[in-house]
Amino acid sequence: MFSSEYLKDISDKAISGLKSYRDAERLYDPVKYVLSQGGKRIRPVLCLMSCNLFSDQIDDAIMPAAGFEVFHNFTLVHDDIIDKAELRRGSPTVHHKWGLNQAVLSGDVMAFIASEYISQAPDPVLGKLLRLYNQTAIQVCVGQQLDIDFENKAVVTDSEYLHMIELKTAVLIAASLKAGALIGNAPEKDQNLLYEFGRCLGIAFQIQDDLLDTYGDTKVFGKKTGGDIVSNKKTWLLVKAFELADGEQLAKLKSLILQKEFDPEEKVKTVKEIFDSLNVRLLAENLSYEYINKAFESLDAVMVKESRKTELKQMATGLIGRER
Amino acid sequence: MFSSEYLKDISDKAISGLKSYRDAERLYDPVKYVLSQGGKRIRPVLCLMSCNLFSDQIDDAIMPAAGFEVFHNFTLVHDDIIDKAELRRGSPTVHHKWGLNQAVLSGDVMAFIASEYISQAPDPVLGKLLRLYNQTAIQVCVGQQLDIDFENKAVVTDSEYLHMIELKTAVLIAASLKAGALIGNAPEKDQNLLYEFGRCLGIAFQIQDDLLDTYGDTKVFGKKTGGDIVSNKKTWLLVKAFELADGEQLAKLKSLILQKEFDPEEKVKTVKEIFDSLNVRLLAENLSYEYINKAFESLDAVMVKESRKTELKQMATGLIGRER
Repeated sequence: MFSSEYLKDISDKAISGLKSYRDAERLYDPVKYVLSQGGKRIRPVLCLMSCNLFSDQIDDAIMPAAGFEVFHNFTLVHDDIIDKAELRRGSPTVHHKWGLNQAVLSGDVMAFIASEYISQAPDPVLGKLLRLYNQTAIQVCVGQQLDIDFENKAVVTDSEYLHMIELKTAVLIAASLKAGALIGNAPEKDQNLLYEFGRCLGIAFQIQDDLLDTYGDTKVFGKKTGGDIVSNKKTWLLVKAFELADGEQLAKLKSLILQKEFDPEEKVKTVKEIFDSLNVRLLAENLSYEYINKAFESLDAVMVKESRKTELKQMATGLIGRER
Repeated sequence: MFSSEYLKDISDKAISGLKSYRDAERLYDPVKYVLSQGGKRIRPVLCLMSCNLFSDQIDDAIMPAAGFEVFHNFTLVHDDIIDKAELRRGSPTVHHKWGLNQAVLSGDVMAFIASEYISQAPDPVLGKLLRLYNQTAIQVCVGQQLDIDFENKAVVTDSEYLHMIELKTAVLIAASLKAGALIGNAPEKDQNLLYEFGRCLGIAFQIQDDLLDTYGDTKVFGKKTGGDIVSNKKTWLLVKAFELADGEQLAKLKSLILQKEFDPEEKVKTVKEIFDSLNVRLLAENLSYEYINKAFESLDAVMVKESRKTELKQMATGLIGRER
């Protein structure tokens, strides 16, 4: 197996290989800006590792893997418009730096660059790969829509929440893995196991992300915890707390959320006390473990030698932030 | 040959066959709204006619043809954001009706629906078709960027203007035609002739559009003429006038464009007088004829019986608004 560092490196190279058009610097400058900010290249690395499970030859998967990363970055550019975010990875967002119009248009061209990269897969797998990719891209848009809708919804159930993060986050990770297997000529059963591995991993990853925002170690997490609570973000923790809270707790939660003026630290402290009394942290951790276990069960069932799975398991374990 | 009415009808049906997702009405409502507003379905009809030149069986081209129309409508939704347009085809634009965020996201999903439709082409042509489509989609984004850039540019040459409209408008018409030929298993030479036919037709079409906005018959045109002049839009007429104007005319043109307060009718009248004295109307008409002639030369060279070309010629003639 190739190491994740090596695969990240070739993903970086593939992504930076943007064709330059002589007369549209303004279109491509934001694209290069976003793609050069790095990130962990999770999706292309998973795609290449998945291909490498079945084939020692991963060249055919490099550009499609890069395509998944470009697509992911496209979603960030447009999501940042929608969320009015000013910072991303510590730098100004595209719409903040270049204005709304440029963020719309440069985002758009990234979607087509992604599609162009994906379409560089070998002809025999192209039909299946594109069905997978287009379906996934549409699902990601649906997931983003559901996330927006949640903001104006009084009650969100935990299954609605899980459905949303599955679409918004998990299916792209799942599709990146399945795409790698497809290009590596894996049997269909193994392709689907890798999809399920990625789907469960993605859901676990998002629940962990929710947990980190509230309970993470500020030093490790790199930013202040409690941001989700302050902004009333409907995380799994809050959704579950609303479901479990009895009369008095429910009234308190509602009043905390409706407060227009408040001391952020005080709000975080009080909400966390309610979370604690309802045990939602433990419930979230358990749910995350369940998905992690399901993920690894799927990976275990993939019919290749265990030794080939080592790097992928390490990568997955690193992603969800705990040893197994 | 199938008639354009019949082909418009099957394009309408293909486009309205949108998969419905149970939980994302808010995402799809604007998509259905835009796609049900009609329009002439120029791109899918040209795609299907082009396929029909080579094959009596056009079923394989229906969904890709619909894909070109969905892509075109995607560009309208995002362009309307950029142009802050409030009306399109006489109805409120998506961002005006549903807000900016919804227009960004529903536009995005249209781009992926377009790609999904295009990818339904038969496997043997899929690779070539996708290279054509993705390249074209990227070029259209570049064209839109150039159009935006022109607004802040003091001098635009007529070749820069032609390059912009080629990318923004003509290549999509060209690609729709080439795609139909490709799916109809046309020889590569004929595919390229149809691309050239569409490219020249698209450029002629845009020049005619510029002419109509200034010189059109209000009754036929359906809206007031002179809008481009009032808004200082850099049309071929204005670009050429700037190039040809001498000292005094140039000073007058510049002062007219810089005026903040003016009587619109007076401005239109004065600019048209300058256009007349510089002969730019005739020059534009001649340029348009040149492109129309080039377009028909390419179509004439396509190696199929003349009788098969009748409908396509009629459609093209209808588009550019004059008999040949």
